Amino acid sequence: MRGFEITVPLPLDDADTAVREALGGQGFGVLTEIDVAATLRAKLGVDRPALRILGACNPHFAQRALEADPSAGLVLPCNVVLEAVDGGTRVAVVDPRALMAEPAVAELAEEAAAALQRVVDGLADAA
Amino acid sequence: MRGFEITVPLPLDDADTAVREALGGQGFGVLTEIDVAATLRAKLGVDRPALRILGACNPHFAQRALEADPSAGLVLPCNVVLEAVDGGTRVAVVDPRALMAEPAVAELAEEAAAALQRVVDGLADAA
Repeated sequence: MRGFEITVPLPLDDADTAVREALGGQGFGVLTEIDVAATLRAKLGVDRPALRILGACNPHFAQRALEADPSAGLVLPCNVVLEAVDGGTRVAVVDPRALMAEPAVAELAEEAAAALQRVVDGLADAA
Repeated sequence: MRGFEITVPLPLDDADTAVREALGGQGFGVLTEIDVAATLRAKLGVDRPALRILGACNPHFAQRALEADPSAGLVLPCNVVLEAVDGGTRVAVVDPRALMAEPAVAELAEEAAAALQRVVDGLADAA
């Protein structure tokens, strides 16, 4: 799956704060949060590095996507994956163009992709 | 976006209960829930029919996906979309094969798709 990636020299919780601020700057709120490492530890007894998935949504984009393509709900919200790595936190943001390939929403996917690219660019400055 | 769909003759809350039971029968838990209609009403003042997105995850599938492809977090969890329609609730479940096209996870995507197909088949019997 295609995405935008950056590794920031911050611990995961600080990276999470920076990511939420950068998302907010582009009109995205965080609607869901999954602590994947804790979930896999609880369900399977597996130990793995910290991994958190934030579900980000820009209501304007979401509304337009749902109007243009009723099945857009299948790919909302946009995932932002935070993973603890050596030297900081790897941040990967899904590329909406990879999720919304239908012609009806192609232009919207371009706009959403540009907004999320700016989120990642903003993190490079913040870090 | 490709998905498995069924319309069940139940109000949305009852369909939600049936969906969670069917998911549980295939080892999927619900990790996230978004009330899309309420969110769009609060953020944009838009009125639309009830629309809820459940984020379903089978920890065994998730663990295998993350081991095979570290970017799998970009497409977790699997969305189950519940929408109020005339005569009941339309249930659409994302097809993991549409999200995970990489060869490393193709077989896993097939297995997950089969499990989610069984969820939808089970709803047909329950309704």
